[in-house]
Amino acid sequence: MAIGIGLLGLGTVGSGVAAILASPQGRHPLVGELVLERVAVRDLSRPRPLTLPPERLTTDPEAVIDDPAVDIVVEVMGGLEPARSLILRAIAAGKPVVTANKAVIARYGQEIAAAAAEKGVYVLIEAAVGGGIPIIEPIKQSLGGNRIRRVSGIINGTTNYILSRMADEGAAYAEVLADAQRLGYAEADPAADVEGGDAADKIAILAGLAYGGPVERGGIATEGIDRLDARDVAYAAQLGFVVKLLAVAEKVEEDSAAAGDGHGAEPPDGVALDVRVHPTLLPKHHPLAGVHGVNNAILVEGDPVGQVMFFGPGAGAGPTASAVVADILNIAGIRQVGGPQAGLDPLLAASSWRHCSLVDGSMTRHRNYVRLRTRDEAGVIGRIGTCFGAAQVSIQSIVQLDAREGEAEIVVITHEVREDRFREALGAIEALEGVEAVAACLRTL
Amino acid sequence: MAIGIGLLGLGTVGSGVAAILASPQGRHPLVGELVLERVAVRDLSRPRPLTLPPERLTTDPEAVIDDPAVDIVVEVMGGLEPARSLILRAIAAGKPVVTANKAVIARYGQEIAAAAAEKGVYVLIEAAVGGGIPIIEPIKQSLGGNRIRRVSGIINGTTNYILSRMADEGAAYAEVLADAQRLGYAEADPAADVEGGDAADKIAILAGLAYGGPVERGGIATEGIDRLDARDVAYAAQLGFVVKLLAVAEKVEEDSAAAGDGHGAEPPDGVALDVRVHPTLLPKHHPLAGVHGVNNAILVEGDPVGQVMFFGPGAGAGPTASAVVADILNIAGIRQVGGPQAGLDPLLAASSWRHCSLVDGSMTRHRNYVRLRTRDEAGVIGRIGTCFGAAQVSIQSIVQLDAREGEAEIVVITHEVREDRFREALGAIEALEGVEAVAACLRTL
Repeated sequence: MAIGIGLLGLGTVGSGVAAILASPQGRHPLVGELVLERVAVRDLSRPRPLTLPPERLTTDPEAVIDDPAVDIVVEVMGGLEPARSLILRAIAAGKPVVTANKAVIARYGQEIAAAAAEKGVYVLIEAAVGGGIPIIEPIKQSLGGNRIRRVSGIINGTTNYILSRMADEGAAYAEVLADAQRLGYAEADPAADVEGGDAADKIAILAGLAYGGPVERGGIATEGIDRLDARDVAYAAQLGFVVKLLAVAEKVEEDSAAAGDGHGAEPPDGVALDVRVHPTLLPKHHPLAGVHGVNNAILVEGDPVGQVMFFGPGAGAGPTASAVVADILNIAGIRQVGGPQAGLDPLLAASSWRHCSLVDGSMTRHRNYVRLRTRDEAGVIGRIGTCFGAAQVSIQSIVQLDAREGEAEIVVITHEVREDRFREALGAIEALEGVEAVAACLRTL
Repeated sequence: MAIGIGLLGLGTVGSGVAAILASPQGRHPLVGELVLERVAVRDLSRPRPLTLPPERLTTDPEAVIDDPAVDIVVEVMGGLEPARSLILRAIAAGKPVVTANKAVIARYGQEIAAAAAEKGVYVLIEAAVGGGIPIIEPIKQSLGGNRIRRVSGIINGTTNYILSRMADEGAAYAEVLADAQRLGYAEADPAADVEGGDAADKIAILAGLAYGGPVERGGIATEGIDRLDARDVAYAAQLGFVVKLLAVAEKVEEDSAAAGDGHGAEPPDGVALDVRVHPTLLPKHHPLAGVHGVNNAILVEGDPVGQVMFFGPGAGAGPTASAVVADILNIAGIRQVGGPQAGLDPLLAASSWRHCSLVDGSMTRHRNYVRLRTRDEAGVIGRIGTCFGAAQVSIQSIVQLDAREGEAEIVVITHEVREDRFREALGAIEALEGVEAVAACLRTL
């Protein structure tokens, strides 16, 4: 039973998918039933590592979607438009879609899901998060019995590469970024990676699946690594921490004081989430602390499963193509269950089942790392401690890590405290006699 | 659409499953459609943490299977019989089965799969390997586009707990085992865990799924940790390694010299595998080296995905129940696709598609760690090196790690060498002037 595949895009990922389809031996036998019918490319004359019959190539992506021989549309062109319109066109034609496009799904996921539900087709997105790591399908198909407490992950390979090198070499951010660009690990315009937007796209998608409802992409508090000082990476290491760009989605209990235990009652209108992206100090033995270089890892915490982690290559032609082909196979496999009038598997379709709202960040609770620049004189540490205490911010440690020429650097690690109280304390500390600046402020697990 | 669940067994895992079904709020809405219709227990009078209407409990497991209200049979009683017969009875009745029973699946998987295929029902086994870690379904549903090179894992929590403590505390095996038994991490009869049988059951299952055909359980070379000397754990650490009980299944190329590249032609009758369980030295930065305590992790290496790893709690009521419920949900979900006459999804059904044969271990290639007890005199290291060289065994390092009272301990790490040549060299070395014994011999990654 041959299944026709239409490919929109023949860049890195598209070529990787075509390479798998062209050599099915030794893979699951369903791969052998997939036929690459049509491929939309930007430029017909460009030389390609793959030989495809010329009549299968076209510059018209709509012709690929409309081709009656195409049963499944695979969108690997990237970018917001025309990708979004093409995905919607395929759905309207009743064709299931596989896409690696995190930007489109994070922004237009609701529109696309609604259209797909109406037409009864699948839109699968395993390749959109974590490259080759199976993470989307396990969340949809293997963890449904759980109440998810938290999803946290290192889901941007570029920033993890930069942070790994900053930690290993004590190098400055700008220096490592330039090197990463030279080596092809960072884009010429690195903004989406280093400012955290790419990770925010991905955590929006993961949170939507883990908690069962769309998450407003625009409401995700996002801080990148572009203002991270090598000094804080070094101080963190001295204190037993590793700095990672973490994307986090966690359930917040109605009484924010109980946040994190995962057992409280749900607000009647759904679930309240704290979703954010920021550089984070992880204790050295945290499962995510050992994730180096361009690798990605996602930690899912739920009741009753506890902690499960998924680790692997977060990008690259091969891994991403592996994820795209997984989605194609799932659609091909489930076609054998029922005919064209068959219903949708609710797990694979991942239809939304509750309302997810984002909480006001000032009421959430976190541990914090603060670096203060002060005058090197007696009494400063005491005054800082008193200030935190007055705002009910309890402190785990306060250490003077450097002092020279009359100036000192003091690092404070707080216990878990409410954000508004922490900010209030920082305001008071900035105004203290002897305190010159709050030089850095990072979240801590 | 209520779906009737029949539970065979209400021990730790069964109670965990019942607890999830009894409180669906905050979980996937499909959980709310599952109704625990009948439960088979050994003793009706035993007090239970769950309150179930007494008419739902029975001591007759066949009555559970035969109950027309039961749509899915969940076997969590453990043991070979009557579990095997009950699974076959459920299949014969046309009812899908979910089981956590690795021993039955590793031994009777072929018989059960054949019966299930004939009746067109699913037998799902996520809970049989890796506790709560989603690993069975990802291998079946998310990696089918790959040629799998190797599956390796820490899949026995008891031995990993013992090895972690031996490494951390420098303690002896027997001492830590006794403590583990006291704490409930090891059974009163620990043989299945410490001799490697449990891990062999599980790697048989993983290999069968990853390579697409049943693997002969009896042919798996199995060595446990019960004869492991604390001294070798300490020496390994000095040389930059961690000792773990690893279960490995890897594809062997026809030319064994090319083993491991994963691209060679397949033997016409299927695929040749090297499947084994043994204590293994892992380099400190290997992804599996950081897996501590009762956790499990499985590393899957394939082309083109590269390395992906799945990590989490390898046992326990909650995690295992999470995996059992995942399987139930998958069956419930796919029932919505087609009616009772629907076909099987070939990925979820995981039907066998090629022949897997186990290779002759003497022709496989490995790195090795050898500890020799010798007389403390000049020339011994040279004679040992010459012996290895004569058998074409190339050496990475040879180090004298201890010497006292005229005796020395010499540790050799070889490069990857063929097993028969390595054994030949060891034989010659044992007969050498000045060599008293080959005191330990461990595989090395």
